[in-house]
Amino acid sequence: MPKLLVVHGPNLNRLGSREPQRYGRATLDSVNERLRGLCDQHGVSFQATQSNYEGELIETIHAAADSGVGFIVINPAALTHTSIGLRDALLAVEIPFIEVHLSNIHAREPFRSCSYLADIAQGVISGLGAEGYELAVQAALRRMVGQQN
Amino acid sequence: MPKLLVVHGPNLNRLGSREPQRYGRATLDSVNERLRGLCDQHGVSFQATQSNYEGELIETIHAAADSGVGFIVINPAALTHTSIGLRDALLAVEIPFIEVHLSNIHAREPFRSCSYLADIAQGVISGLGAEGYELAVQAALRRMVGQQN
Amino acid sequence: MPKLLVVHGPNLNRLGSREPQRYGRATLDSVNERLRGLCDQHGVSFQATQSNYEGELIETIHAAADSGVGFIVINPAALTHTSIGLRDALLAVEIPFIEVHLSNIHAREPFRSCSYLADIAQGVISGLGAEGYELAVQAALRRMVGQQN
Amino acid sequence: MPKLLVVHGPNLNRLGSREPQRYGRATLDSVNERLRGLCDQHGVSFQATQSNYEGELIETIHAAADSGVGFIVINPAALTHTSIGLRDALLAVEIPFIEVHLSNIHAREPFRSCSYLADIAQGVISGLGAEGYELAVQAALRRMVGQQN
Amino acid sequence: MPKLLVVHGPNLNRLGSREPQRYGRATLDSVNERLRGLCDQHGVSFQATQSNYEGELIETIHAAADSGVGFIVINPAALTHTSIGLRDALLAVEIPFIEVHLSNIHAREPFRSCSYLADIAQGVISGLGAEGYELAVQAALRRMVGQQN
Amino acid sequence: MPKLLVVHGPNLNRLGSREPQRYGRATLDSVNERLRGLCDQHGVSFQATQSNYEGELIETIHAAADSGVGFIVINPAALTHTSIGLRDALLAVEIPFIEVHLSNIHAREPFRSCSYLADIAQGVISGLGAEGYELAVQAALRRMVGQQN
Amino acid sequence: MPKLLVVHGPNLNRLGSREPQRYGRATLDSVNERLRGLCDQHGVSFQATQSNYEGELIETIHAAADSGVGFIVINPAALTHTSIGLRDALLAVEIPFIEVHLSNIHAREPFRSCSYLADIAQGVISGLGAEGYELAVQAALRRMVGQQN
Amino acid sequence: MPKLLVVHGPNLNRLGSREPQRYGRATLDSVNERLRGLCDQHGVSFQATQSNYEGELIETIHAAADSGVGFIVINPAALTHTSIGLRDALLAVEIPFIEVHLSNIHAREPFRSCSYLADIAQGVISGLGAEGYELAVQAALRRMVGQQN
Amino acid sequence: MPKLLVVHGPNLNRLGSREPQRYGRATLDSVNERLRGLCDQHGVSFQATQSNYEGELIETIHAAADSGVGFIVINPAALTHTSIGLRDALLAVEIPFIEVHLSNIHAREPFRSCSYLADIAQGVISGLGAEGYELAVQAALRRMVGQQN
Amino acid sequence: MPKLLVVHGPNLNRLGSREPQRYGRATLDSVNERLRGLCDQHGVSFQATQSNYEGELIETIHAAADSGVGFIVINPAALTHTSIGLRDALLAVEIPFIEVHLSNIHAREPFRSCSYLADIAQGVISGLGAEGYELAVQAALRRMVGQQN
Amino acid sequence: MPKLLVVHGPNLNRLGSREPQRYGRATLDSVNERLRGLCDQHGVSFQATQSNYEGELIETIHAAADSGVGFIVINPAALTHTSIGLRDALLAVEIPFIEVHLSNIHAREPFRSCSYLADIAQGVISGLGAEGYELAVQAALRRMVGQQN
Amino acid sequence: MPKLLVVHGPNLNRLGSREPQRYGRATLDSVNERLRGLCDQHGVSFQATQSNYEGELIETIHAAADSGVGFIVINPAALTHTSIGLRDALLAVEIPFIEVHLSNIHAREPFRSCSYLADIAQGVISGLGAEGYELAVQAALRRMVGQQN
Repeated sequence: MPKLLVVHGPNLNRLGSREPQRYGRATLDSVNERLRGLCDQHGVSFQATQSNYEGELIETIHAAADSGVGFIVINPAALTHTSIGLRDALLAVEIPFIEVHLSNIHAREPFRSCSYLADIAQGVISGLGAEGYELAVQAALRRMVGQQN
Repeated sequence: MPKLLVVHGPNLNRLGSREPQRYGRATLDSVNERLRGLCDQHGVSFQATQSNYEGELIETIHAAADSGVGFIVINPAALTHTSIGLRDALLAVEIPFIEVHLSNIHAREPFRSCSYLADIAQGVISGLGAEGYELAVQAALRRMVGQQN
Repeated sequence: MPKLLVVHGPNLNRLGSREPQRYGRATLDSVNERLRGLCDQHGVSFQATQSNYEGELIETIHAAADSGVGFIVINPAALTHTSIGLRDALLAVEIPFIEVHLSNIHAREPFRSCSYLADIAQGVISGLGAEGYELAVQAALRRMVGQQN
Repeated sequence: MPKLLVVHGPNLNRLGSREPQRYGRATLDSVNERLRGLCDQHGVSFQATQSNYEGELIETIHAAADSGVGFIVINPAALTHTSIGLRDALLAVEIPFIEVHLSNIHAREPFRSCSYLADIAQGVISGLGAEGYELAVQAALRRMVGQQN
Repeated sequence: MPKLLVVHGPNLNRLGSREPQRYGRATLDSVNERLRGLCDQHGVSFQATQSNYEGELIETIHAAADSGVGFIVINPAALTHTSIGLRDALLAVEIPFIEVHLSNIHAREPFRSCSYLADIAQGVISGLGAEGYELAVQAALRRMVGQQN
Repeated sequence: MPKLLVVHGPNLNRLGSREPQRYGRATLDSVNERLRGLCDQHGVSFQATQSNYEGELIETIHAAADSGVGFIVINPAALTHTSIGLRDALLAVEIPFIEVHLSNIHAREPFRSCSYLADIAQGVISGLGAEGYELAVQAALRRMVGQQN
Repeated sequence: MPKLLVVHGPNLNRLGSREPQRYGRATLDSVNERLRGLCDQHGVSFQATQSNYEGELIETIHAAADSGVGFIVINPAALTHTSIGLRDALLAVEIPFIEVHLSNIHAREPFRSCSYLADIAQGVISGLGAEGYELAVQAALRRMVGQQN
Repeated sequence: MPKLLVVHGPNLNRLGSREPQRYGRATLDSVNERLRGLCDQHGVSFQATQSNYEGELIETIHAAADSGVGFIVINPAALTHTSIGLRDALLAVEIPFIEVHLSNIHAREPFRSCSYLADIAQGVISGLGAEGYELAVQAALRRMVGQQN
Repeated sequence: MPKLLVVHGPNLNRLGSREPQRYGRATLDSVNERLRGLCDQHGVSFQATQSNYEGELIETIHAAADSGVGFIVINPAALTHTSIGLRDALLAVEIPFIEVHLSNIHAREPFRSCSYLADIAQGVISGLGAEGYELAVQAALRRMVGQQN
Repeated sequence: MPKLLVVHGPNLNRLGSREPQRYGRATLDSVNERLRGLCDQHGVSFQATQSNYEGELIETIHAAADSGVGFIVINPAALTHTSIGLRDALLAVEIPFIEVHLSNIHAREPFRSCSYLADIAQGVISGLGAEGYELAVQAALRRMVGQQN
Repeated sequence: MPKLLVVHGPNLNRLGSREPQRYGRATLDSVNERLRGLCDQHGVSFQATQSNYEGELIETIHAAADSGVGFIVINPAALTHTSIGLRDALLAVEIPFIEVHLSNIHAREPFRSCSYLADIAQGVISGLGAEGYELAVQAALRRMVGQQN
Repeated sequence: MPKLLVVHGPNLNRLGSREPQRYGRATLDSVNERLRGLCDQHGVSFQATQSNYEGELIETIHAAADSGVGFIVINPAALTHTSIGLRDALLAVEIPFIEVHLSNIHAREPFRSCSYLADIAQGVISGLGAEGYELAVQAALRRMVGQQN
């Protein structure tokens, strides 16, 4: 059974209460549930993790390789712009991944328009809120099991 | 009946034959047909246009406003990085839009990582090939008719 | 009879409806009529053209040289910042010109503060709305027929 | 009776003798007389001041606020590019103003193309010589008393 | 019979009358005739096109691929520095090409020293006037038919 | 009873022994005691935390929001210049804060003059050693309980 | 009796009326009175000066050296970012000083985040309004007379 | 007995499996064993640590100071380019260190050519694979115990 | 009788007491006396002025033109790097001048290596202390009266 | 008899063996023979020189002036990007020259796209291999003896 | 018998007397002797050369290729940062090499942190004084004859 | 007897014939004779050298140290902007020197305004033609033998 891992970066545990006008009111649990449902429909095992520690995220990605995860959807949040360590972890495990951003990073502070991950990602989806995760999971599923939406 | 417009920028008429290793082998017509199908399912009128002329694209966007288009999905192609005129047209008509790129613009020449449209877009989807259009149309439909995928 | 040409760049056909809080509610026709009136008072032939195509604007400028236009007032709009072709056309025909911007380009996005035309213009007027055209035409008329306002 | 203030920055007391091929041969007095005439025609009180001291110009602007000046036309000359103090004074008094430059600042040294005032001005007129002052005063008068040229 | 296409960009229709001290007095027709003669000598079919529209130039390049053109000599003129669309068209058709500039682009405004085409060209010839076209066609012919000059 | 949180970033646990010529000889405990005394005088609950982990600092800030902390004084130390995650945490909880630096960051390496927090802080105090904390707490107390020093 | 000098730069004579939402409603006189009170409590002589002239501020600093001033608190206002002359004056007299800014200079125009004084200051306090002066004077007093707050 | 500490940064626990074409196939354990052997030969106590957490690495360095470590060899991996916290920790403990990189950081992405540690290191060795550690330990040993290789 | 003017900029009235290790112990008066002696030897009238006000320096230069000064030696001090007004004054009067700096401006802060005057000066002498004035006056005298040293 | 000089810069003595996939397999001698043949056809004296020493190349250019060389074709190789001395030599002798590069310098490292010679050259030919020399010599001959190819 | 070449760049003939606090007191001869000893132990022929001429160094590298040198250790000294010619020579001969710097180039002037050779080197060793050469030779020997240290 | 060395860089052997409108018509020999005269008057031994080779200039400076030269006057010409080797040579020998430029380097191409020598020079004299050498020698003599001009 193919495995999909969704990785949520720093501060996303506050989703729903953090700047709701920017990030929406859905909680991280409800988002994950929705994504799990999508995976279930296609016979794909779903895992999700959130951490505020770069180190823990790196180790999650290492573990993903050891447990046979086939695709990662990652919202690296603030670490998008500052963590070469995450980049190195993803380079090390060679698992294909899609990068997701809830808000439109191009309409915010200039330092949010650079990403240490984007050029090694399969693709990037930004600005579409929690729906962005769903679209990314759809794209991942299609790549994992060749299903049609 | 709500209207969705898909706008394809310069060189996309060559889709299928142009650098297929980068852009895939689907033709623009087959992409459009697929998108039309999605719209039909949700009772949304579908229009698509392609042009190699910035001027013609600007006028297409003007006309969209006059004919009541409610959402635009646009792949501005090379004009992403060079056309302030397209930006001004989209600012003028105030129609919400999603920007799509077939290839991963972050993995190519540095000048492809800047966009004159991204900061005024609802969102951006890049690197997912022709599937990126489908994901964008899904997101657009949800915003237009509140449907669930 | 001396000839004055007013050139309006991309998106200015939307004047009046496009972002009226920024550009005002006067239409391009009403602006042109007002400018024609000024020219009539001083025995100067008035022509105006608008295009969303850089190529068409270049050819308008070429034609101006062939028909003996003595002065150009140009609002290059978005092409101000991106068209070296317009610069080359104006260099080629060697007709003196004044550059006009409706909005204050210095109070907007940084990319609007560069112009490919300004350093070869007689002068630049920006931020004064449609009145900027009138002031430019006044200055042009004074240079063409030595009249006083 | 509404009041208009014209502020001339450093070195403009040399107008007429200073680089006449660039700035023309009219003296500052003759320019002011011409502007006073325009104001008289529209029932607007005219004041003009010149100083080579940034401090004195700042205090002139402060005094303008205290005496009810309704509009300022300012040629900050060299201070355009170096004085944040003038910017702060104009921000402090909140009097609308138009920035004027005699020469085409875009056709000169690169450091002349930046202005600490332009983004908070109503508009900018440059390159049209002493006539630039007249056009600015015209625009100011129209804003002050709704007159037509 | 092998085909060579020569593409002339914006404003080159003014060749001969446009800034003759910089570009020389030969007209575009006379240049083309000279190039046609070179091709005839080597049994190569010659086509030439000029346009002031980026869109038209893009479509010309598309058409070249469809009609079997084997080599392109292109003077993109102002579009050299601003058109990613032309770059994409040339990438799409994968026809080898040489870039030509009449004037020495390194001795002019700084923005003329960047080219969106040069790094994907076979070579670049600049500063040698209309003769630059001839040298480029010679090089093209040698590559097309192995002839010696 | 209002709550004040003082957050000490990486390496500050070495205060007193770390580069004493730059940071002084007071230990973190003694600094905290002094600040607690100030809070006690004004009936404000005092908490202090130090961590060398960005992730732990983020979670401390999250917890502060949950426990009703009304003001934060933070010395982000090295994370000042590298952590967008801290910025996001502070944006998420919307607790006003003052940024403190022991040393004069402007007199050190250039990379220390940028801060990811300063523009969203109430204020910044730098270069005044451990006394900077006291001044920041004074300012915080005044804002929390309106007391006068 | 030790002497403290407070120096207020350009436009600060407008304090209270200038952009009160940014700078508060206290006048410069009331601020000075408050600071004088602090100094009186610690047996320190207080002097304050304001000028809109860089030259006058330089000479004030020179005079401070001649009259034995032991510490300076300076709000250089706009000159922070443009005056090397003030820097040289402070270097020349070698009197320790603290730099104060009423508003948060990091939350404003980019040019306000550079200071020609900060790297030679004892410390910098910004964004805390008129209270910033008080905190600076407290820190100065402690350094001058070793008092505790 | 003098002590040497070797510090391995993020992702180095994957050594041997991570991008072996770039980093080689030796595991971290085998590298450490080899280094321990070198130290044993010279009567130097060897310790090694790896962490994916910046915070843990900082605390390892603090602890090194407390336990009398005399020299550090550090491969900060991704943190080389992003961690000022590590720099501060090394500045705080004042233990001499050599920086090692397995791959040639100058032949990779531009952001890998900057280091927050290099200018305070004794030296830097890069591009020589796991052998780089050995060379660094040799240099360290010579500095610690004056031995000859 | 030809006239030479020596202009000393801000803070030079402190010469002798200001940072003597950098600027030497000679006072401005003694420097001027020495220069006057050189001029007397060659029958040239000597004037010297010092001001801390940019405005006063500008007016001194204006007055020099009116009184027939034939050559200026100027040490603009801090204004070297910040005053376009001085540049404009010197451009306006068209009097040849040599720029002098006591200290080696290339061995100090980076902002001291730019000059708004140097490119319009006859020459620049820096780093040679008060002797730099003498060398500049020698060069000026030779240009004024053709004398040999 | 008019003289043409061909100058080959550093490393070109390795032509044929040096990176043949980039530079081709022709040796420098065979290239020179071919160029000599072209000159012979037009009654022009041919000289060629190669040196790996900037100093020797400078002196070759000096000598060219002394011996009446009328045109230079130069491939400065690596010195293109680093030698102002060659530029000065060519400026000094005022002999017209064409710059040649074997490889497409725009398709290589960024530092190869700058040239200290290009803006003072008659023209530049790059990317066309050894044929580039021939084209340059053709252009030179036409300019020297008005011949047609 | 495999051959190793050590190349010393400009000014290294002064080793021992040149800034000994930075470079140490060993002479170049003593360094070479030591390196020769290392090579002798492993049956590798040792050659060393020093030159202050870029041209001579280039030719040394050319000659190395002709005589079958298998590895180069090079300290390019000042040419590290300015010589593309050396880079081209090393690219031409395709002999693997290690770059050595005696001093820590990252702790010196900013222009010393760029190298035209580093990205094509096997590795770089800097800051370890003359010992750096030994470490580099060790690494070279291991690569040449597979020996263990 | 104290020794002064004057070093002339590349192309200066052409002095008198090279761009005389910029560099004057005096030859290098006549300049040297004049400087020798100055030295003779003060009992200082004069040597002068010119080379177009950076390597030779470096060795000249080395030799100067060995022969006890006490002061150097150097016009590095083009090497000013490109030779770190000369800088290193001067750092190595620790002989004080003055840098001279004949032309005003600030009024020429931007790349001429940077110097690798200026920050370690005693002083810099530029723009005063051959007289600049004399002034530099005067300053050198004063420093060598305390004489007055």
